Amino acid sequence: MSYFDSIAPVRYEGPDSEQPLAFRHYDAGRRVLGKTMAEHLRFAVCYWHTFVWPGADMFGQPTFERPWQTGGDAMAMSLAKADAAFDFFSRLGAPFYTFHDTDVAPEGSSLREYVNNFAQMLDVLERKQEQTGIKLLWGTANLFSHPRYAAGAATSPQPEVFAYAATQVSHAMAATRRLGGANYVLWGGREGYDTLLNTDIRREREQLGRFMNMAVEHKYKLGFDGDILIEPKPQEPTKHQYDYDVATVCGFLKDFGLEGEIKTNIEGNHATLAGHSFHHEVATAIALGVFGSIDANRGDAQNGWDTDQFPNSVEESTLVMYEILKAGGFGKGGLNFDTKVRRQSNTPADLFHGHIGAMDVLALALQRAAGMLERDLLGELKAQRYAAWDGELGQRIMASGSSLASVSDEALAQQFNPRHVSGEQERLENLVTRFIHG
Amino acid sequence: MSYFDSIAPVRYEGPDSEQPLAFRHYDAGRRVLGKTMAEHLRFAVCYWHTFVWPGADMFGQPTFERPWQTGGDAMAMSLAKADAAFDFFSRLGAPFYTFHDTDVAPEGSSLREYVNNFAQMLDVLERKQEQTGIKLLWGTANLFSHPRYAAGAATSPQPEVFAYAATQVSHAMAATRRLGGANYVLWGGREGYDTLLNTDIRREREQLGRFMNMAVEHKYKLGFDGDILIEPKPQEPTKHQYDYDVATVCGFLKDFGLEGEIKTNIEGNHATLAGHSFHHEVATAIALGVFGSIDANRGDAQNGWDTDQFPNSVEESTLVMYEILKAGGFGKGGLNFDTKVRRQSNTPADLFHGHIGAMDVLALALQRAAGMLERDLLGELKAQRYAAWDGELGQRIMASGSSLASVSDEALAQQFNPRHVSGEQERLENLVTRFIHG
Amino acid sequence: MSYFDSIAPVRYEGPDSEQPLAFRHYDAGRRVLGKTMAEHLRFAVCYWHTFVWPGADMFGQPTFERPWQTGGDAMAMSLAKADAAFDFFSRLGAPFYTFHDTDVAPEGSSLREYVNNFAQMLDVLERKQEQTGIKLLWGTANLFSHPRYAAGAATSPQPEVFAYAATQVSHAMAATRRLGGANYVLWGGREGYDTLLNTDIRREREQLGRFMNMAVEHKYKLGFDGDILIEPKPQEPTKHQYDYDVATVCGFLKDFGLEGEIKTNIEGNHATLAGHSFHHEVATAIALGVFGSIDANRGDAQNGWDTDQFPNSVEESTLVMYEILKAGGFGKGGLNFDTKVRRQSNTPADLFHGHIGAMDVLALALQRAAGMLERDLLGELKAQRYAAWDGELGQRIMASGSSLASVSDEALAQQFNPRHVSGEQERLENLVTRFIHG
Amino acid sequence: MSYFDSIAPVRYEGPDSEQPLAFRHYDAGRRVLGKTMAEHLRFAVCYWHTFVWPGADMFGQPTFERPWQTGGDAMAMSLAKADAAFDFFSRLGAPFYTFHDTDVAPEGSSLREYVNNFAQMLDVLERKQEQTGIKLLWGTANLFSHPRYAAGAATSPQPEVFAYAATQVSHAMAATRRLGGANYVLWGGREGYDTLLNTDIRREREQLGRFMNMAVEHKYKLGFDGDILIEPKPQEPTKHQYDYDVATVCGFLKDFGLEGEIKTNIEGNHATLAGHSFHHEVATAIALGVFGSIDANRGDAQNGWDTDQFPNSVEESTLVMYEILKAGGFGKGGLNFDTKVRRQSNTPADLFHGHIGAMDVLALALQRAAGMLERDLLGELKAQRYAAWDGELGQRIMASGSSLASVSDEALAQQFNPRHVSGEQERLENLVTRFIHG
Repeated sequence: MSYFDSIAPVRYEGPDSEQPLAFRHYDAGRRVLGKTMAEHLRFAVCYWHTFVWPGADMFGQPTFERPWQTGGDAMAMSLAKADAAFDFFSRLGAPFYTFHDTDVAPEGSSLREYVNNFAQMLDVLERKQEQTGIKLLWGTANLFSHPRYAAGAATSPQPEVFAYAATQVSHAMAATRRLGGANYVLWGGREGYDTLLNTDIRREREQLGRFMNMAVEHKYKLGFDGDILIEPKPQEPTKHQYDYDVATVCGFLKDFGLEGEIKTNIEGNHATLAGHSFHHEVATAIALGVFGSIDANRGDAQNGWDTDQFPNSVEESTLVMYEILKAGGFGKGGLNFDTKVRRQSNTPADLFHGHIGAMDVLALALQRAAGMLERDLLGELKAQRYAAWDGELGQRIMASGSSLASVSDEALAQQFNPRHVSGEQERLENLVTRFIHG
Repeated sequence: MSYFDSIAPVRYEGPDSEQPLAFRHYDAGRRVLGKTMAEHLRFAVCYWHTFVWPGADMFGQPTFERPWQTGGDAMAMSLAKADAAFDFFSRLGAPFYTFHDTDVAPEGSSLREYVNNFAQMLDVLERKQEQTGIKLLWGTANLFSHPRYAAGAATSPQPEVFAYAATQVSHAMAATRRLGGANYVLWGGREGYDTLLNTDIRREREQLGRFMNMAVEHKYKLGFDGDILIEPKPQEPTKHQYDYDVATVCGFLKDFGLEGEIKTNIEGNHATLAGHSFHHEVATAIALGVFGSIDANRGDAQNGWDTDQFPNSVEESTLVMYEILKAGGFGKGGLNFDTKVRRQSNTPADLFHGHIGAMDVLALALQRAAGMLERDLLGELKAQRYAAWDGELGQRIMASGSSLASVSDEALAQQFNPRHVSGEQERLENLVTRFIHG
Repeated sequence: MSYFDSIAPVRYEGPDSEQPLAFRHYDAGRRVLGKTMAEHLRFAVCYWHTFVWPGADMFGQPTFERPWQTGGDAMAMSLAKADAAFDFFSRLGAPFYTFHDTDVAPEGSSLREYVNNFAQMLDVLERKQEQTGIKLLWGTANLFSHPRYAAGAATSPQPEVFAYAATQVSHAMAATRRLGGANYVLWGGREGYDTLLNTDIRREREQLGRFMNMAVEHKYKLGFDGDILIEPKPQEPTKHQYDYDVATVCGFLKDFGLEGEIKTNIEGNHATLAGHSFHHEVATAIALGVFGSIDANRGDAQNGWDTDQFPNSVEESTLVMYEILKAGGFGKGGLNFDTKVRRQSNTPADLFHGHIGAMDVLALALQRAAGMLERDLLGELKAQRYAAWDGELGQRIMASGSSLASVSDEALAQQFNPRHVSGEQERLENLVTRFIHG
Repeated sequence: MSYFDSIAPVRYEGPDSEQPLAFRHYDAGRRVLGKTMAEHLRFAVCYWHTFVWPGADMFGQPTFERPWQTGGDAMAMSLAKADAAFDFFSRLGAPFYTFHDTDVAPEGSSLREYVNNFAQMLDVLERKQEQTGIKLLWGTANLFSHPRYAAGAATSPQPEVFAYAATQVSHAMAATRRLGGANYVLWGGREGYDTLLNTDIRREREQLGRFMNMAVEHKYKLGFDGDILIEPKPQEPTKHQYDYDVATVCGFLKDFGLEGEIKTNIEGNHATLAGHSFHHEVATAIALGVFGSIDANRGDAQNGWDTDQFPNSVEESTLVMYEILKAGGFGKGGLNFDTKVRRQSNTPADLFHGHIGAMDVLALALQRAAGMLERDLLGELKAQRYAAWDGELGQRIMASGSSLASVSDEALAQQFNPRHVSGEQERLENLVTRFIHG
């Protein structure tokens, strides 16, 4: 019997449905701007929060009591977990999933065990994917939970730890390739510092740059044609992480010659922890040419740690989807639910409530954003605002012949005295409200 | 009669002095690690907060009633202000000062008036410098106060505004050169956005990159041999500024080919507004090779805006000074007091209390940091921590021949199983306390 | 000619209107849950941000150039401002306004001038109210802008400052009564401290308690039958304000015997500055019996100062309106737009965009909240969750006869072993989304 | 063999000692202001972080490998833990310890087991106290870790959970009394909410008020003469806790008639999470008459969760100690190290480094604060600042006969026009620096 037997496969029933375990807006096959919702949104369920986290927090014991967490033989538990996971994906109707190596297989007590366990579970996952049609959005390696990684993986003061991490990444990337994963993600969970007093920033950045370069080379060696993505996060568990935010990651990539090789996987909650809006991080990644994929979640605006809640704001999500659609959509990326039900939400149904609500919110956001783009009034107003830069003076300034002196001479000769023009923020905000709320 | 007549020139009287308007630790000529305190610290008083700000805040009217702020002829007020400023610098014994163009001269109602007023006041400043021996640490241009800059200077949607800003910078940089300034600073007070809804990030970054390149070219054209510095700030007055923090600035510089041409002027309060410690920003700038100068101030740990208070923590300042001394000291940079007395502190004496206290705190920090470096225990422990990276495995990993595969093969072959080694954070913190508090 | 002549009176045109200066959702006479929208929402426009603030910020000069801010005779400017203000209220169709004493009349250079100027302007306001039918939601006194209040009003170290403030409040409350104001508001703009080093918290609280008691007594003496409201704010311009948040205000009221005499005016932006959601502050005020009125605005989730932006989230506003409707609606309170257009938004139209958008957002929120209450599913689920407390054990525990010992004895005797029941947060969030987004 | 055998008993060796595992400032018997340091500071080591926490965090597995955490028989592990704990207390020379019921005894799988296990361990603790002379600063009950408490203890929607909690508190308070504990602490770890959507604030506050009243009554019934203390915390693990900060707790106590019966245990890290300085919370508690005891730790100024680091700022601690000494010292309270070594600090020595450093920092703070009080210049300046309130006008205002009208009449009659007097913040900050840094 399955843990989720009480939950019927989730169907689209439309906005009038009063059934809580049905989609009211996510209609996988419905076409929006020429593609189906499923093709646009590329939803993925994550293994870790949904099947690995037991409902413990820093002040409390596990609350969940999932059957595959009752202890006992590790491989048997991994198999039971895989059964439950694919059962969940299927009932939910999510087209993709994501995992860390150690989510799906026991890490064992040695590298040999790690490799063997992982290989066995890969067979299982491959078979499950075939049986269900569920695909892998991305894989990754857990380089932060084991005590060996307490001081970092690539940035550890111990080269053996770097080597251990390299082994995990080489296997996890190969596994991702074998399972047809669309991307491979690096999250530097402890690549940063707890205190500057024992940290050589320059040295650790060099190690991390080396590691990333190796990962890129390995990708080509494997013939893996997915994208490699870094997931920025400013802090937690460390005091400070080197992949603080999108702009910091871009600078890092340039420093180590990785431009064009690595993109970003942007998480809503990490954006707000870094002092940015989610919208900002997505817009910045697009402007800087490093947009890859999304970890769709939200933080709590009043709490300063990673709460990884399900996205439930159509207002925020619409602005994010607008940027993504305008930039051409997801490509290989997608919307991964790096989200967990609250520790109090301990039933099988709660797992469905969380995912269904988020999928509906994002389906609404897709539709609202598509509405905004049908005639892109925001885009038109923005273009008008900068129109003078396409004029003679603007072009001359941007052209290579001009200089501070030449521009200054012109300004003085003509006694430039530009007057401020309204930015019309309130009008634009009203326009967005109109597209979202009718 | 001078506004500061009631205040005698400030002297070093030593730790036992009970005179509040004397230095108790800053002894300009005293030698520390082979240089005088004055040579190490290169203190500068800023014109804007100290002589321009009238004691108003967003909720209140001016409280200060400085004689040169009583209204009337603008040039006469500028002259009175310059008299007061140099009188203050001299009585305080600060070797340097800093200014924006519009701090020292009336901006007038046209570019022509701007140029004329500034030129007249330059003669005055030059003479004052000669008379007093006070030098210019850096100059800059105010590209954020006038309404024309409400939507940015280089990043304005109006090219004329860019040109206006270019005119100011070309004159302010020439002025800085003429006055023997050691550096030229760019603070992009409104180079960012209030709302993403009306902002083309990509376009604005291009404009800003163009502006910076022009500024660098102008420097060489002028034969100015000072450094150009960017002062990172994450927000305020904008919602988001493009020069968010040191790491973001570094990425920006690389994007626009400005590596090696521009360094950073790091402000304590801006660091904390960006979610970093002051120590972090300084250590990062040094690690990334862009450390230039310091705006020595502090924010309020509980308030989310730029309070620009005088530094009063020897504990924090010592860690900052330790990093700077270890990296070779200030070079052309220095410690500029981008600080203002509180709005309630409306007397001439309060201006002295603020600066004297800060200079003493930083003099103490210099001595404590020098103590830490005499035998650099922290540095030794840090080097030991990473020592294995200088060993065979570490070197092999960092060398160009290695790969994820080769490192992984080695780890598997030898069944690496590294155990976590303590980071000893508490021990190191105690060590720092010992150097600071004896 | 009026400053707002270019703007036609704003009408309700319905959701399909593409006219930006029309209401699309706020239809004043439309009935919702038995009352008109106008009766429910009781919108008020504030004098200060809308007609007094010139578009300056801490880093920039005024951008607005309103005709009544061009300088010249102070009373003439106040008259022109009143003309513009009531013209704006009328064109917008706002039923209420709010003011500080010094917003509407020049404060003059002495108490005598203050009293005279205020009295003259009261005649003007009274006439304007009669002519237009616009009413006063509340009046207040500005006890924070003048330099005399730099160290507080009631909490000033100078008793004369307390007396000056008392004079303003006695006149402002009398004015409020004469103009038929529904409430009188106290905002302790500087009732707090900049530094603990010079502050006697106990003493200042006593002074503030005395002041509040005097204000309450004065209300009865005047025969004013409106409510007195305190507006909590945690900080800014001070480091810390004594009226930090709703819970703090409640404790203060109890301390000084003011329970039942003073309620709260809750501002959205102040709530978030205090580390709370707006929803939290409203729900807390209702639970504690001190809910009075609302300053409807929003802050910026990434900026740490009071941005006073127009509310534009239907999602957030619906939860707030749900609580208020459920508690019986506003009573004497209302929704005051303590909001300002951005400094870049310098046209007459921008003032309308801001208010129209906010009124539409709140009208939508009213309708969505009414929908939630038609059959109050949230309320039902909440009641079910606590149902056991209405049962035998629950009642016994809450009854006066029980004790820790008796309850403990019962638990031991019966070997209580309660199991955790899901809090269903995700399901409830989905329910809210359904009410808001269909 | 003891886990701590490698660490010799820690001795005072004075500031010149280079031995890291010695006190350099904490000299237990040294007299300061008429009492020994030990009598002043009343240091306590906490059981939970030091002996229970295994070095896990939300992203990582345990790193510590303490012998008493290796699994096996629960009572045997508790005994081993008690051996280690008292060995640690003794070697460190800490006069006090603190614990939760479930730190010292296995909670078992039923109330019966809980009671039995706890009783057995009480015998052990009593014997250990006798053998070592170590005393109990306070005891408490863990009402937040077990899944039954996921939705709160007293505020749970299930009365059985309230009853379970009542059982624990009645036993933990009796145990505290039996062990001679000086206080009993309540920390409402989950007395708050995760979402307002499922929370009845009014109801939960009533439950909590009932629980606290029962606890107070129980204290008298037991004849326990210690103080009951509430430990404010704004959030984490909950989104919002009802005991947010000192001011909120005071309001709560008044609401439920608990004034004078319950004081506060103030934690540094909780203060900063609530948006206050530690200094503020202590000063507020003293001003409001609810100061009880201190959880001496610090947070990370850039991280938004409870890091519980060892206090290492003499600057911050001195201001806290100044307030406490001035208010008469600790009484029954003390300085409890609610602190944990970093997850990377996994050796026995690290536990000593953390505590030794903190004890030295607080010993320095005690001495510096005593220096400030010898001649209390700060106090004198503060008294002068408010002196006018002791004068005629001030006294008349505060007296019961005055009214807003009478004060206003006087102000008008005499045309009060007070001018702002400097608050001298910078001067006072310098004074503090002088006392701390010489």
